[in-house]
Amino acid sequence: MGRWAPDARGRLMRSALELYAERGFDQTTALEVAERAGVTERTFFRYFLDKREVLFEGSRDLQEVIVTAIAAAPSSMASIEAVATAMESAASLLPDREYSRQRAAVIAANPSLQERELLKLATLAGAVAEALRRRGVPDLAAGLAAETGVTVFKIGFETWIDDESAQDLAQCIREALDQLKGLTAGA
Amino acid sequence: MGRWAPDARGRLMRSALELYAERGFDQTTALEVAERAGVTERTFFRYFLDKREVLFEGSRDLQEVIVTAIAAAPSSMASIEAVATAMESAASLLPDREYSRQRAAVIAANPSLQERELLKLATLAGAVAEALRRRGVPDLAAGLAAETGVTVFKIGFETWIDDESAQDLAQCIREALDQLKGLTAGA
Repeated sequence: MGRWAPDARGRLMRSALELYAERGFDQTTALEVAERAGVTERTFFRYFLDKREVLFEGSRDLQEVIVTAIAAAPSSMASIEAVATAMESAASLLPDREYSRQRAAVIAANPSLQERELLKLATLAGAVAEALRRRGVPDLAAGLAAETGVTVFKIGFETWIDDESAQDLAQCIREALDQLKGLTAGA
Repeated sequence: MGRWAPDARGRLMRSALELYAERGFDQTTALEVAERAGVTERTFFRYFLDKREVLFEGSRDLQEVIVTAIAAAPSSMASIEAVATAMESAASLLPDREYSRQRAAVIAANPSLQERELLKLATLAGAVAEALRRRGVPDLAAGLAAETGVTVFKIGFETWIDDESAQDLAQCIREALDQLKGLTAGA
């Protein structure tokens, strides 16, 4: 997803992030994003439902890849391991680290974007729990493993964008899970 | 917090929940809530910032009790144990099960309320992580233990409101943590 990628969708995503970072999310209109991307406002709304959604493009793909990977995991694999492995395999879908870092800063600066981000993660946890239940994991365990999977994804992601020396995202997710295992084993 | 408690704040909370359940959140105005509670709209806004916040009254108290309990936990106590114990001690602050159940149903029916609920839980996780860091817990472990604590609180809460045979909330939280330990140990 290069800065000057020819596709309108990619340009809109980049332009939105730039403008939200420069002026703030509330101070930017969809029209301004469209203008910077060199398309009409109408085109903006053909790709995105609203000004917020442009930052969450890809979360549905991410979820689909994760759910598919859980379904495909060997039936002998423990639920938390199936979830973490699925999260790792989805890591490659995320845009480059610099885009992810800027996006995280824009979201952190705006409560309504934080809320949307949290809702996407909760939706992901719900889909993961459902995928586990389809593997025969009981309700309570499915909910716990799903929430825990989202936690290691989230904390791994934060390490990845905050820590220059961090490995790739999949590695950060794995390390977060290993740490969590140590924490709960030690308790 | 009885249904006809003399305090305006309690009456407003009950009235809001009733109306949101009967008509839906979007179809209810602050004025209507005030009228059912027998106070003016002005009084509503003296207690609550907006129509959403009336459902989240008490989340700040909950957070304060949890953070205080973490700070007071013996320094030898493992971080995840300190968090879970604090969550259990805060369980008694929650309103009765029937109110909690109705409130959960209203929130589940409305994405904007779900978002607010998730933001409150994320804020709680942030405060818990900060309380752990003040105990000397390193960043990554503090974040993981805090998120995990919120997970067991959330899952324990869901069990408590969904399952008639469930024990009290503190017991449900403890059982969720025990299950989680089993899940991560088995992985």
